Amino acid sequence: MSEQLLSSRNLAFELYEVLDAEALTQRPRFAEHSRETFDAALTTARTIAEKYFAPHNRKADENEPRYVDGRAELIPEVKPAVDAFLEAGFLNANRDFDVGGMQLPSLVSQACFAHFQAANAGTTAYPFLTMGAANLIESFGTEEQKRLFLQPMIEGRYFGTMALTEPHAGSSLTDIRSRAEPAGDGSYRLKGNKIFISGGDHELSENIVHMVLAKLPDAPAGVKGISLFIVPKYLVNPDGSLGPRNDVLLAGLFHKMGWRGTTSTALNFGDNGQCVGYLVGQPHQGLACMFQMMNEARIGVGMGAVMLGYAGYLYSLEYARQRPQGRLPDNKDPHTPAVPIIEHSDVKRMLLAQKAYVEGAFDLGLYAARLFDDTHTAADAEARRQALELLDLLTPIVKSWPSAFCLKANELAIQILGGHGYTREYPVEQYYRDNRLNPIHEGTEGIQSLDLLGRKLAQNNGAGLKQLIRLIAGTCERASHHPNLDTLRQPLEQLVNRLQAVTLALLGDLGQGKVAGALANSALYLKAFGHCVIGWRWLEQAIHAEVGLLKGSDRDFYLGKLQAARYFLTWEVPGCHNDLALLEARDDTCLGMQEGWF
Amino acid sequence: MSEQLLSSRNLAFELYEVLDAEALTQRPRFAEHSRETFDAALTTARTIAEKYFAPHNRKADENEPRYVDGRAELIPEVKPAVDAFLEAGFLNANRDFDVGGMQLPSLVSQACFAHFQAANAGTTAYPFLTMGAANLIESFGTEEQKRLFLQPMIEGRYFGTMALTEPHAGSSLTDIRSRAEPAGDGSYRLKGNKIFISGGDHELSENIVHMVLAKLPDAPAGVKGISLFIVPKYLVNPDGSLGPRNDVLLAGLFHKMGWRGTTSTALNFGDNGQCVGYLVGQPHQGLACMFQMMNEARIGVGMGAVMLGYAGYLYSLEYARQRPQGRLPDNKDPHTPAVPIIEHSDVKRMLLAQKAYVEGAFDLGLYAARLFDDTHTAADAEARRQALELLDLLTPIVKSWPSAFCLKANELAIQILGGHGYTREYPVEQYYRDNRLNPIHEGTEGIQSLDLLGRKLAQNNGAGLKQLIRLIAGTCERASHHPNLDTLRQPLEQLVNRLQAVTLALLGDLGQGKVAGALANSALYLKAFGHCVIGWRWLEQAIHAEVGLLKGSDRDFYLGKLQAARYFLTWEVPGCHNDLALLEARDDTCLGMQEGWF
Repeated sequence: MSEQLLSSRNLAFELYEVLDAEALTQRPRFAEHSRETFDAALTTARTIAEKYFAPHNRKADENEPRYVDGRAELIPEVKPAVDAFLEAGFLNANRDFDVGGMQLPSLVSQACFAHFQAANAGTTAYPFLTMGAANLIESFGTEEQKRLFLQPMIEGRYFGTMALTEPHAGSSLTDIRSRAEPAGDGSYRLKGNKIFISGGDHELSENIVHMVLAKLPDAPAGVKGISLFIVPKYLVNPDGSLGPRNDVLLAGLFHKMGWRGTTSTALNFGDNGQCVGYLVGQPHQGLACMFQMMNEARIGVGMGAVMLGYAGYLYSLEYARQRPQGRLPDNKDPHTPAVPIIEHSDVKRMLLAQKAYVEGAFDLGLYAARLFDDTHTAADAEARRQALELLDLLTPIVKSWPSAFCLKANELAIQILGGHGYTREYPVEQYYRDNRLNPIHEGTEGIQSLDLLGRKLAQNNGAGLKQLIRLIAGTCERASHHPNLDTLRQPLEQLVNRLQAVTLALLGDLGQGKVAGALANSALYLKAFGHCVIGWRWLEQAIHAEVGLLKGSDRDFYLGKLQAARYFLTWEVPGCHNDLALLEARDDTCLGMQEGWF
Repeated sequence: MSEQLLSSRNLAFELYEVLDAEALTQRPRFAEHSRETFDAALTTARTIAEKYFAPHNRKADENEPRYVDGRAELIPEVKPAVDAFLEAGFLNANRDFDVGGMQLPSLVSQACFAHFQAANAGTTAYPFLTMGAANLIESFGTEEQKRLFLQPMIEGRYFGTMALTEPHAGSSLTDIRSRAEPAGDGSYRLKGNKIFISGGDHELSENIVHMVLAKLPDAPAGVKGISLFIVPKYLVNPDGSLGPRNDVLLAGLFHKMGWRGTTSTALNFGDNGQCVGYLVGQPHQGLACMFQMMNEARIGVGMGAVMLGYAGYLYSLEYARQRPQGRLPDNKDPHTPAVPIIEHSDVKRMLLAQKAYVEGAFDLGLYAARLFDDTHTAADAEARRQALELLDLLTPIVKSWPSAFCLKANELAIQILGGHGYTREYPVEQYYRDNRLNPIHEGTEGIQSLDLLGRKLAQNNGAGLKQLIRLIAGTCERASHHPNLDTLRQPLEQLVNRLQAVTLALLGDLGQGKVAGALANSALYLKAFGHCVIGWRWLEQAIHAEVGLLKGSDRDFYLGKLQAARYFLTWEVPGCHNDLALLEARDDTCLGMQEGWF
């Protein structure tokens, strides 16, 4: 059987050739690991994903959660899948051995998780959200909160959610209206409405722990007045047993275009004035807490987009190999047999573009996970700081680039299947619908572009940016020893040089308070910056492919890598120069457009 | 109420400012028409589209046709809508007064039809397919065939389909296997299976007339051995009354991602050896017949893509005007009220891009319809020939460009609505799903690119191309009298000059038999050529906007046109230079990719 979720050869290339996962086993935290233990975890992930997650992906799409008597009802296949995930320990893949975790590097745990994301985005969301909520409590909760809420989450008995968005405020968290009043006993009473809360109700777990953003009575206006609360679906008694239902009402379900397996809920907190919550971290520091945990979550979202793209790529690749249709253009003889469509140049283009998008973004996602490992396990504080600076800078790209371009990959997968691709008898249309969520949730493309240009670039006096430029220059230098790679290196060098100049100019504008003009075309900047980063990662992959070719084995694999690198660096990267020209000119076509002119 | 289907101001701009519809009333065929009769037809179309088509667009999506006892069952709202369409005479909008038609120019009838396409793509397909089938019989059928099949179609009693695609052959019509044996009485017995036959079964009409491609026993191999047949669902007696059911079996329905209101069927012809068909036109000339009718059908498909884009644009525009969220980037004061999102530069970008795509493509579609009118009503044979040459050349663009870029517009409409746009509580996600069909059916993007580069360019010694280049040069010359338009004209001139050189080089290669290399990157050529054409149409619109501005009224409308033209010509058109560079270099990245390397 051909691989459906991801290419294990490509995964091994990333882990053991490009990103040197084995080097991590030299670090104390991962000293008990080895390539063998990494591979064992990956094999388990693949097995469970194939056995429990993939089979109900379509069924979950066709039978979205139903609102029944105030509860959300899921199809029965979800729970055994999630249970198998929990039982195998993936919820705690990164946690310490001594709390029952696998103590895996994030690089490996993200790679494990990728299998589930490719197999079934909807079902995978439940443990994903639980991991995010658990991490918040682990980082910022009191010992009591950890005992009562984190521990049962680690045990897989409680699940979690992130409850940020409110109907009137959308992306503008500044304007949330949910309130939390001190109850006098150390707890709070919350009141407010949240929407688009994924996993906001289900019967997969004994309890659901909502991580809710709300404002205290004395809160300053704006984002600096937002606090973070634990609000459980069922109250928890001091001995850890379940108490009565909390005043959290499932107001309704959203019916989405895709990603239908995950309940998307509207939740009312405190309709009856009895919604009990517990402050996490310091008052008014809720958004800071949330953002501190955001890097890993956004890697996860980016990887989710990659994996939907990857699954579509592999499916359309196999289809193109099997499907005979038409003849090559220099053969018009209808008596000759039809060729598999993979032989048509335009089909190769659509496959090569998909390969360039998904394998480029897959590399970046794992590179970011590797950086995350460095933030807490690199040899010294300086190296850890550097890793964090670079990761902070890259996070908007890690989240947004796959969301845009792996969606495009899914569009191409449909096109390769033609009319069949448009039907629900084949899986690629679902990947496309599922993936359309990724440019929206966890910070839209627009939010990411402002985060990058308006915040991340200038952080720490641009230390992350300087580091990135140095790393790209280093890759280009190494590439220059491979004459074969000249035509790949040069477009990257041209882009990075121009991008650097544009960046300095825009930061200069921001420094002078010309904010509106500098940020007006942030979408162009996000795209050009993203292409620069992915182009860099492809050049890295190409260098490793050149090295691999010298070893003599796996020749086809490495030649494919070089061809995909060539596609991305010569077909896609040079296309960014018009974006940069518009940024250089501070083009005001969009900024200057008036509402009345539409 | 804001307009939902299309902007009537923009339609008037196209008809009466850009394309001079009134000039058509000078022609004998349209002499009884006037701007008033045109507008009356348009108003009727809008009224019926709003009253009968739009209201069940979502319901039809949620309740796709069901296969019940060998029949396809539709929701009850479809028939009254189609009946209202028929009753108002739109099925015969172009036909002669003396057969009960409206004798409208195609320019106006396409504009009428556009309202239905925007309101409900699924329901509109039934009359659309019937019009195509009727036109085929009108052009190539015998008098007897016209009496028995065309006349009841004109009366709206019979509907029609086009049955081309077969399971194993897909786009490669060369390889169809359906057979037709002479029965000795002048009729034929057909045997074969067809898939993706839209409107292949329903109860909207007394009968369904399938226009089927099949091969005669003595057929030469390949596309020159394909014949066209009438195959009715119910046989028709010589007196026009319905006979028994023909041997056409509804084998099943396809379940699509979108466009769900239209049945997509698998039909088996002749499972019992009793499938009666009637040859239309000459033996082995079926594909030529089909293609002769293709221009108007492909304008229709292109306009369908435009109108889904248009409906999404208008919806997201209205949403952006109404939805307050966030503040402008130079105002961080959370005490100030949120602004409507249309004030954010990135939202303006997404609206401006949609406007540029949908209004650019709308103009091209209507321009093509105007050319179609010229093919049979221009003053002399030479003018008619020229119109046909240009229309033939433009048809792949008219079909494919909106299919690609108005889908992109729909993607942007979702993004503007954010999480809401991803839910089925809002209409934009359906437009996106519906529109995803357009790059596939009636000739995929890949087929269109080969049609353009491999066939249309060289037709008639490149007469169509020369004409297009002359027309673009003429527009640029007129634009040069408006200094305001210099920055719009120059990118178009640069693109068209380079495109012309690339075209000659590629045609040279084709002339020398270097077919595989010349056609390898046809997708890039299609995109660059399309952008050149749309850029030209935007420059035309910009000139008319400049003229309009001088008149002093409707200032906002004209300024919006100029800004959209600026967006397209400065943000999008220069982006094609990398495509042309790859074509100039005969880049073989895709062609050279090997199956084993993936």
